[in-house]
Amino acid sequence: MTPDDLGRLIERLPFAQIDHLRPITQGHQEVIFCLGKTPGQVVAIAERLERATGSFLATRAEAAHRQALAHRFPRAEVSELGRTAYLAPDPEPAPTGRGTVLITTAGTSDLPVAEEAAVTARALGNRVERLTDVGVSGIHRILTQTDVLRSAAVIIVIAGMEGALPSVVGGLVKAPVIAVPTSVGYGASFGGLAPLLAMLNSCAAGVTVVNIDNGFGAAVAASRINHS
Amino acid sequence: MTPDDLGRLIERLPFAQIDHLRPITQGHQEVIFCLGKTPGQVVAIAERLERATGSFLATRAEAAHRQALAHRFPRAEVSELGRTAYLAPDPEPAPTGRGTVLITTAGTSDLPVAEEAAVTARALGNRVERLTDVGVSGIHRILTQTDVLRSAAVIIVIAGMEGALPSVVGGLVKAPVIAVPTSVGYGASFGGLAPLLAMLNSCAAGVTVVNIDNGFGAAVAASRINHS
Amino acid sequence: MTPDDLGRLIERLPFAQIDHLRPITQGHQEVIFCLGKTPGQVVAIAERLERATGSFLATRAEAAHRQALAHRFPRAEVSELGRTAYLAPDPEPAPTGRGTVLITTAGTSDLPVAEEAAVTARALGNRVERLTDVGVSGIHRILTQTDVLRSAAVIIVIAGMEGALPSVVGGLVKAPVIAVPTSVGYGASFGGLAPLLAMLNSCAAGVTVVNIDNGFGAAVAASRINHS
Amino acid sequence: MTPDDLGRLIERLPFAQIDHLRPITQGHQEVIFCLGKTPGQVVAIAERLERATGSFLATRAEAAHRQALAHRFPRAEVSELGRTAYLAPDPEPAPTGRGTVLITTAGTSDLPVAEEAAVTARALGNRVERLTDVGVSGIHRILTQTDVLRSAAVIIVIAGMEGALPSVVGGLVKAPVIAVPTSVGYGASFGGLAPLLAMLNSCAAGVTVVNIDNGFGAAVAASRINHS
Amino acid sequence: MTPDDLGRLIERLPFAQIDHLRPITQGHQEVIFCLGKTPGQVVAIAERLERATGSFLATRAEAAHRQALAHRFPRAEVSELGRTAYLAPDPEPAPTGRGTVLITTAGTSDLPVAEEAAVTARALGNRVERLTDVGVSGIHRILTQTDVLRSAAVIIVIAGMEGALPSVVGGLVKAPVIAVPTSVGYGASFGGLAPLLAMLNSCAAGVTVVNIDNGFGAAVAASRINHS
Amino acid sequence: MTPDDLGRLIERLPFAQIDHLRPITQGHQEVIFCLGKTPGQVVAIAERLERATGSFLATRAEAAHRQALAHRFPRAEVSELGRTAYLAPDPEPAPTGRGTVLITTAGTSDLPVAEEAAVTARALGNRVERLTDVGVSGIHRILTQTDVLRSAAVIIVIAGMEGALPSVVGGLVKAPVIAVPTSVGYGASFGGLAPLLAMLNSCAAGVTVVNIDNGFGAAVAASRINHS
Amino acid sequence: MTPDDLGRLIERLPFAQIDHLRPITQGHQEVIFCLGKTPGQVVAIAERLERATGSFLATRAEAAHRQALAHRFPRAEVSELGRTAYLAPDPEPAPTGRGTVLITTAGTSDLPVAEEAAVTARALGNRVERLTDVGVSGIHRILTQTDVLRSAAVIIVIAGMEGALPSVVGGLVKAPVIAVPTSVGYGASFGGLAPLLAMLNSCAAGVTVVNIDNGFGAAVAASRINHS
Amino acid sequence: MTPDDLGRLIERLPFAQIDHLRPITQGHQEVIFCLGKTPGQVVAIAERLERATGSFLATRAEAAHRQALAHRFPRAEVSELGRTAYLAPDPEPAPTGRGTVLITTAGTSDLPVAEEAAVTARALGNRVERLTDVGVSGIHRILTQTDVLRSAAVIIVIAGMEGALPSVVGGLVKAPVIAVPTSVGYGASFGGLAPLLAMLNSCAAGVTVVNIDNGFGAAVAASRINHS
Repeated sequence: MTPDDLGRLIERLPFAQIDHLRPITQGHQEVIFCLGKTPGQVVAIAERLERATGSFLATRAEAAHRQALAHRFPRAEVSELGRTAYLAPDPEPAPTGRGTVLITTAGTSDLPVAEEAAVTARALGNRVERLTDVGVSGIHRILTQTDVLRSAAVIIVIAGMEGALPSVVGGLVKAPVIAVPTSVGYGASFGGLAPLLAMLNSCAAGVTVVNIDNGFGAAVAASRINHS
Repeated sequence: MTPDDLGRLIERLPFAQIDHLRPITQGHQEVIFCLGKTPGQVVAIAERLERATGSFLATRAEAAHRQALAHRFPRAEVSELGRTAYLAPDPEPAPTGRGTVLITTAGTSDLPVAEEAAVTARALGNRVERLTDVGVSGIHRILTQTDVLRSAAVIIVIAGMEGALPSVVGGLVKAPVIAVPTSVGYGASFGGLAPLLAMLNSCAAGVTVVNIDNGFGAAVAASRINHS
Repeated sequence: MTPDDLGRLIERLPFAQIDHLRPITQGHQEVIFCLGKTPGQVVAIAERLERATGSFLATRAEAAHRQALAHRFPRAEVSELGRTAYLAPDPEPAPTGRGTVLITTAGTSDLPVAEEAAVTARALGNRVERLTDVGVSGIHRILTQTDVLRSAAVIIVIAGMEGALPSVVGGLVKAPVIAVPTSVGYGASFGGLAPLLAMLNSCAAGVTVVNIDNGFGAAVAASRINHS
Repeated sequence: MTPDDLGRLIERLPFAQIDHLRPITQGHQEVIFCLGKTPGQVVAIAERLERATGSFLATRAEAAHRQALAHRFPRAEVSELGRTAYLAPDPEPAPTGRGTVLITTAGTSDLPVAEEAAVTARALGNRVERLTDVGVSGIHRILTQTDVLRSAAVIIVIAGMEGALPSVVGGLVKAPVIAVPTSVGYGASFGGLAPLLAMLNSCAAGVTVVNIDNGFGAAVAASRINHS
Repeated sequence: MTPDDLGRLIERLPFAQIDHLRPITQGHQEVIFCLGKTPGQVVAIAERLERATGSFLATRAEAAHRQALAHRFPRAEVSELGRTAYLAPDPEPAPTGRGTVLITTAGTSDLPVAEEAAVTARALGNRVERLTDVGVSGIHRILTQTDVLRSAAVIIVIAGMEGALPSVVGGLVKAPVIAVPTSVGYGASFGGLAPLLAMLNSCAAGVTVVNIDNGFGAAVAASRINHS
Repeated sequence: MTPDDLGRLIERLPFAQIDHLRPITQGHQEVIFCLGKTPGQVVAIAERLERATGSFLATRAEAAHRQALAHRFPRAEVSELGRTAYLAPDPEPAPTGRGTVLITTAGTSDLPVAEEAAVTARALGNRVERLTDVGVSGIHRILTQTDVLRSAAVIIVIAGMEGALPSVVGGLVKAPVIAVPTSVGYGASFGGLAPLLAMLNSCAAGVTVVNIDNGFGAAVAASRINHS
Repeated sequence: MTPDDLGRLIERLPFAQIDHLRPITQGHQEVIFCLGKTPGQVVAIAERLERATGSFLATRAEAAHRQALAHRFPRAEVSELGRTAYLAPDPEPAPTGRGTVLITTAGTSDLPVAEEAAVTARALGNRVERLTDVGVSGIHRILTQTDVLRSAAVIIVIAGMEGALPSVVGGLVKAPVIAVPTSVGYGASFGGLAPLLAMLNSCAAGVTVVNIDNGFGAAVAASRINHS
Repeated sequence: MTPDDLGRLIERLPFAQIDHLRPITQGHQEVIFCLGKTPGQVVAIAERLERATGSFLATRAEAAHRQALAHRFPRAEVSELGRTAYLAPDPEPAPTGRGTVLITTAGTSDLPVAEEAAVTARALGNRVERLTDVGVSGIHRILTQTDVLRSAAVIIVIAGMEGALPSVVGGLVKAPVIAVPTSVGYGASFGGLAPLLAMLNSCAAGVTVVNIDNGFGAAVAASRINHS
């Protein structure tokens, strides 16, 4: 492509540049990260994406973002738990990924992050399964589920507190394991620093890590793997 | 397997338990992490692994570890740069991974971590290619290499300083990108904290991160992806 | 000047000392930093500055500060986005700086900091241009704008997340680059620590850094350069 | 006791005050912490303790401390691994604690801390057993040892890296579990901060924590429990 | 137990897995940690626990949690101070622990943590006593209470600010001492980091530490000791 | 004094122990630190102190504390700025300190801390003077005041931002200088960490430091010096 | 330029890519950062740069690097103090910058950083002057030098300890001020963190900051300003 | 004084400016801080100070500094323990301070910092006494010394580990208390951060703090108090 071609694929709004090259370079269109944007800006970006592809996904959508999007796009699916708004293509295509993305959580309090990951993984064309509340202090909860673990193509493991679950899961399977630390905890958790450091130091080789509470990023990584 | 079966697959030394279950559970045998072990302990573990499979890999091998291993296993390949010792199976089997693991470094000073990653990826059955010294301050160095980037199955991106390279690479490809921060830098690098935080906050979705200087972990994750 | 002369140029209020030496020493009068001051204190200081020079600039002005200033100085321009209140001299003089101050932002969420910088740069006598939402994960967005980048006398680069944009810009131009980390992000951003450290460790030589979210400071530095 | 009585139980050297009240208040005499003391000071304190009770224990004893103590007290047992010097009473009395103190380590590299704990626990009158190299990435290594775990009166769990082992052990037993983070690791371990934070955030209730590498403190706490 | 037996003891809700193995493995049933759970989820878990054993304990219960529990279980005892809800067995059995758990606080502001600890210790079958506002800056307040200190089987010491009290208490008694740092303080307390670090570095051997404000964890540890 | 005498000087409330020994040991009675106490607890403690000495001082008094105290003690002087409530003895005695305590602030935003210090210093019997808004970026503001600085017996220097003022003042006088960092600032101030570290590293020898925003502590230290 | 043109300007060594585009894009050729490179790698890069332009500059050159360069390029000027090796063009051209770069240091211990800055500034075509040991605790040392300060086009201010000097200098001049924190200090300096934070929070607007001990980066920024 | 007078009191060496104003402004001449200076620089500064006043004090003097000073000034008193070199005036004048500076240490390992403080306090004209190894874990060691504590004009309290001693001492006396945290400890001491934070959060009002291991600074502050 020439620089001019490139330039034409970037749509310039006063406050944003919509990058219509993404489907070519990264395999999927831009996702709207609502944090720090006004509801009006979010809707305007969603309109451009919907016009180009009939679909959009917005994450970190607070109540005002979600209301504005739901009002403008009545067909959009809005999740308060996961703080997402998703307008699926109509009709929604079958999953394109090779296998299943398994989303595993250590505790009930980690469910919002799991929801963000699940919506994202689905939007990117993946089949999603879940395993919930299987933290290591009751180790038999995960050990009685090794069949589920071993049938997944990629596993996202979400945990707050001491963040130990990815190390145990990483030792039980051959599949890639993506660890997501959460800000669940208090005191010396320091907003999720404790599980973040734990996961980065995992003794189970092959575990990779994303930012605290970043269910979105884990799902994109999982989808890249599931489509590779 | 019964608990007794499990027990028989664990070989107990006075200072270590060799876990011969790993090939079944994780897809490859244990790798020896030399840090904090005596050369004698390292050799003793290597002997058990060699006896079981004809091969071993040792990482974080300081001079004393490397000398002891080279003396006991003359056929082992020892790398001072990557601090590894690798005894390949004889004959060494062809790579089993689906595609190529591309190891990309931002600067010359990141080469030791790249070497650890390359040896590990090879030991785990992957074809390895490299792209060296393509940091973002001379952005055309990486941009003239997009073909190489796009032909890889998995990309490991190794960078110190501000750790920006994974964000640029992540935006140029569809493949999974594993970022490795290095301790290259000084002052406010705080031993690699700066690129670690940068990579965890990458605006390129789908980038996952491993510990500072952890070329080994990145390669294991890449191999899991390349074999999935 | 004698100590007595100096003393006469300092106007003492019960809660502040207005430093009328600043235009001589630093080239421009004091700017009112509203954080931690009451609206009444802010208005009182603004009155002294307006009396001395017919103009004032207030930054970090929260709603109560802005309302009090707008009420007392109806001609003042108030920006909610940039949290500024600016009373321009009447008539407003032409820019005195040598060239253009270019204000570049990585994402839409960085716009409040850009606004603070733009208002400040204008108040200090600079021509201002902008380049918005050109973060590195879609690298062609900035690469198609190198002409704009190269025509600026000074470039302010504002970025949250991993803070990589100044390194790319610094490698594309000869002009001074001032990097402003923002608190845009979450989790391991630690309130902007991640981009701050990244920018301090930039591999692009010649990048200097100001405090997190400090659009004001970046603009003052840019103005000093543009007037030197 | 009167203040004068108290005063008589404190033996004043120019550089230290030997506190002969400790057996009455805390149940055992002072232990010599060698860090930052000269070998001469350490020997002088050991002499006073030996004179009073026929025994002493020195921890954090570097080579120079160990040589000086071994030369002065040929009967003392010196451990290079655990950096301890112990002069047992002659004859050594039978253990006085109720049950067994089990010292568990996640990896081979944690053995120095385990040795310090073992020597200390023995010196304080406890029966000691060990379980070595049972980290969570090969979870069956610990699961096949639940009988050993459940027969202990107190369990000390020593782990570096992500520090996950105490959470798993804490979930398998009713006994008190004392977690010891170690500085084993690199990069984002930050000298043991990672396992320290993990252990403080353990989801297994009832786990308490001591300082990084503090095998001594864990053993004293275990002994207090075992004698209560 | 076979894996199937294990599986049957885990009750699967859509958002949680109730672990009915805990009384066997850890000696008491699960406690509900309300942080990050919805009131509905908390009530649903409480119902399963009540059905199984006639009792439950919920900690970190905010107003909404407490109201929902009080409405559903009118007999439950709700503490605003300690943020707990406790449904005692009816009739409540006599304490089963060997001795007394003494809960000591440095200042009045530490009382919420003490209350959480007291309710938990009682729920786990321990006799509880208290010593309040005996911080070290008025050292005679604790020194005139050494009889109370020495009669306890286990001592929980709760302190914010500089966290010095456990060191003084640890030097006065033979019993195990569990230190709880609190977030009481400001500035360089950094949310309780100051007393946390102080307690981890206590010069009084045998002091163990739990997370900041973790009265619950301290009580579980104390109960394990008191029942060992 | 016998232990019984000591015991009688401690007045035990259910939630606090009033230490009537303080005037003897520390030279002044207890001051009420309101943070974390209920208004009822604060009033109850104030009543005991007023009964014993006809006076009390409460710091960190939020609106609810201040209202409760003002209602119960109409004669008390309440400061919203300094968050204090002070019931002076009637009649208020003349200052007892040797000289003047000078309270110096770098900026207008530091005034709340200065107010807390001023009220405290007065309550402890000191003559107080002030120097306001003399930060180092307009260095002549402080240099034209060296006579005031040199006439003080003790100087309290309060500064946020970079906390440089104590170093300049410390170099201009012979008197003791107590530095108080404030949380005034944003971003890389990290809640006052920046001026705290700066003051601890002051190149002006003889500067000592108290906690962030701790005007109270600075005043007590100044009073001890002024009365020594 | 076409991608092929770009490609031809990048010289590929096995361990580095020499970027001959830099003179066009950034205004000067690459500088060799020796940290983490072998002496052989450094010499090889220097040879390519010398061949292209007759000149090179190497920074962070340890003894082995300096010896290798001095041996291969006898004409190179090697500085142990500044850890630099500079091969000037022959003949060395006159300075091309508009004015003078003034390098100011707070203390004698900051001289190594000043030397690195001075050599770099000269190599980039700037006239350099110095002001040494003018820290703020003896404020008249800098105040008697305001003429020197005001005659500079750009001022680099280098300081360790509390890093206050840039705030004072920034308030005395109109020129751009670049602050360099140094690792001079101990304890709560935390390797230069204290002055780094102080400088980022400077109350003197217009101060920008580079990494700890980064004399090189400050000089490149100053040169960009001096050539703009 | 005129600027010219000021200028004449500053003696300019190529690497330092000797500030002969200090006796007038701060009450004593400059002290040589050796860290980061060459032995030659230190000797050159010492010569100027000796010439002006017949005396000098050097702190943080490593072996090379001490040897150079001892060789050039045979009469100087050199302390390896305290890393000081002191050339007393001949004859040494009687102490000029009002009372005694008491230097108290928590443990034997704190003695080097105490030595630095003692030499400095003496050099500044103070009578010095010591109380050694009276840490809080054996609380009666300090309690039996309250007479000594109460007879001092100023108390310096030096402690590592948890840094609790200043809080206890501050509660026992009316005199000013200066707390010095030391780097004695390991692990979560983080180089003295633990006692530093503890001391800044002391519940004993009136305690002020200096940098970690800064015996010098504590002594200067004590001397200012003792001479005020």
